[in-house]
Amino acid sequence: MILLFTDFGLHGPYTGQMMHQWAPGIPVVDLFADAPVGNPKVSAYLLAAYAAWFPAGTIFLCVVDPGAGGMRPAIILKADGRWYVGPSNGLFELIQRRAGKTQKWDIDWKPEHLSASFHGRDLFAPVAAMLARGEPPPGRPRKDDADRREDWPDDLGEIVYLDHFGNAMTGLRATMLPEDVRLAAGGEVLERANTFSDRQPGTAFWYENSNGLAEIAVNHGRADRELGLSIGSPVEIVCCMKAGSGQSFI
Amino acid sequence: MILLFTDFGLHGPYTGQMMHQWAPGIPVVDLFADAPVGNPKVSAYLLAAYAAWFPAGTIFLCVVDPGAGGMRPAIILKADGRWYVGPSNGLFELIQRRAGKTQKWDIDWKPEHLSASFHGRDLFAPVAAMLARGEPPPGRPRKDDADRREDWPDDLGEIVYLDHFGNAMTGLRATMLPEDVRLAAGGEVLERANTFSDRQPGTAFWYENSNGLAEIAVNHGRADRELGLSIGSPVEIVCCMKAGSGQSFI
Amino acid sequence: MILLFTDFGLHGPYTGQMMHQWAPGIPVVDLFADAPVGNPKVSAYLLAAYAAWFPAGTIFLCVVDPGAGGMRPAIILKADGRWYVGPSNGLFELIQRRAGKTQKWDIDWKPEHLSASFHGRDLFAPVAAMLARGEPPPGRPRKDDADRREDWPDDLGEIVYLDHFGNAMTGLRATMLPEDVRLAAGGEVLERANTFSDRQPGTAFWYENSNGLAEIAVNHGRADRELGLSIGSPVEIVCCMKAGSGQSFI
Repeated sequence: MILLFTDFGLHGPYTGQMMHQWAPGIPVVDLFADAPVGNPKVSAYLLAAYAAWFPAGTIFLCVVDPGAGGMRPAIILKADGRWYVGPSNGLFELIQRRAGKTQKWDIDWKPEHLSASFHGRDLFAPVAAMLARGEPPPGRPRKDDADRREDWPDDLGEIVYLDHFGNAMTGLRATMLPEDVRLAAGGEVLERANTFSDRQPGTAFWYENSNGLAEIAVNHGRADRELGLSIGSPVEIVCCMKAGSGQSFI
Repeated sequence: MILLFTDFGLHGPYTGQMMHQWAPGIPVVDLFADAPVGNPKVSAYLLAAYAAWFPAGTIFLCVVDPGAGGMRPAIILKADGRWYVGPSNGLFELIQRRAGKTQKWDIDWKPEHLSASFHGRDLFAPVAAMLARGEPPPGRPRKDDADRREDWPDDLGEIVYLDHFGNAMTGLRATMLPEDVRLAAGGEVLERANTFSDRQPGTAFWYENSNGLAEIAVNHGRADRELGLSIGSPVEIVCCMKAGSGQSFI
Repeated sequence: MILLFTDFGLHGPYTGQMMHQWAPGIPVVDLFADAPVGNPKVSAYLLAAYAAWFPAGTIFLCVVDPGAGGMRPAIILKADGRWYVGPSNGLFELIQRRAGKTQKWDIDWKPEHLSASFHGRDLFAPVAAMLARGEPPPGRPRKDDADRREDWPDDLGEIVYLDHFGNAMTGLRATMLPEDVRLAAGGEVLERANTFSDRQPGTAFWYENSNGLAEIAVNHGRADRELGLSIGSPVEIVCCMKAGSGQSFI
């Protein structure tokens, strides 16, 4: 199965031109077509949260690539049995960091025609198809870590995605947060809830979403509008000091 | 075939995370991903109008579920040979009311992991897959009618959907309306037309759409903007009294 | 393979109701669901640029049909081995003009039920399915050229599409433009670039996009907003006179 993770948007020809190249027998699922536009850092936290949900053998075709036509490597990553194909611009940083076992290749296969602006169609989609057919990675083992972003945090205190309901996902994994932590965003300090129906309509709160991220929501409302949140808005951890502990954890 | 009827939006991971669970051999069609958000009542009239168009055996996976994590039952409905899987919150009221033969089950299958907020992925999608494979409904026959909404009207005088062209579907079946009826919406009283080209450009009118609903449109224009219509806007029947009849029909 | 080129929008039931009619074995790709609404002329230049990219045998189901319910013919076009099914309202003008070999049929197959407003579902989709199954075109050879638009230019100096990134495609093929030509749009005169990274962030330019159209973009910005461009906005060629040549080419 090929999973798509792109910032192409659902509209327009980009996804269609990638997909038509694959044999009908290969199942394709569009996971995100609206990853944060041109923002590999924020996208990296979103991808890592969702990829973990899929079985080994899944092939992730990931294109958030503001440097298309520029100078970033094109790579294949295998991490805990899942495959990732895309630009090496930090997009896979959290996947690698959280994986038990990784291998990387620099793609050295060249298409007959490589457009300057659409490597998703011309380079990454055909490579994903090769992997889907069970062929070996068309590249040579990657030797250096120039694609790593060691300075990025393990969890990101920013909004990484706004969904159709106006809920705002953060780059913070809920399991990394103490049970009684509060989050500050959009000028409000938010308590944790287990589900929407735990809170009065109109109340903003945060909860662990179905993929493990801390997510900000308003019961019967839209958190994006009511708190003025957008991609990259800061989210601060308001701690939850246990007397005498004084620990900071992120 | 599995038909999707949700308010998840086309963007984002929700539909993708449901779909990837199904075997590649099962055809899946996304009918509505933008059903009226969090509004099972209005959605019920939309679903009933569109479901009738599909053959017996079709499996409708329906998730408009503002009470996710709350206390509504999860059910399977079989109505005139079509299957419906989803929350029992009124969403299937009109399907049941208009069907010749119905059966219902309370889902008693439990997934290994049931998230608090995404029953579409964790509960309803696997149940739809079971039905698609020809397995028996994983539940026990439903005994009461606590999920019914007997007080809802047979046809709804409200806008239930706005399409890409700005046309506004009502919850009124055109065949239930007298031929010469006019509809009042957005401060205007609208005549019936057979097709768009029957009316001058810029003129608002209503017509029977391709699925049998009364729909408000403007030839070469957008009814939503020009009449200020949104989901739930009232639509009144301006009758059409035949002398001496005096009947009211809705 | 069936390729969809429509102005239906991604939301709502229209594409779903067309697709469900096709056998699961037929691959379907949604190329454009957001072709310029109700604008067959501008859509014709977009379609011609993208269709050329697909192999012979591909079936294009094309519905940009403001005259639905009106009086335009319904046709099948075969051009350079590709099939096109849709309304004959100019939408196929550039396909025909640029093709080496064409054949046309007037569709004379009639569905059991033809709605007044949704020929895509009732007429064009079943015809595309027949072609996909290898059946002969269900029509009679078209005898006249009433569907042609001989007065339309070979290349169109207008914006024909805005993508998710805010890039603005023109109806001008880049290969038809001299290398050093500049384009005037939205009050600015734009130089040609090879790729985005050739230009400073914030700078507007034009380049040959991955399908051969001249496209206006802003590095790390949105050309649609920064230049105030929308579908149909004029794009003028600011020439590039070579001393003594004085030629005009469009």
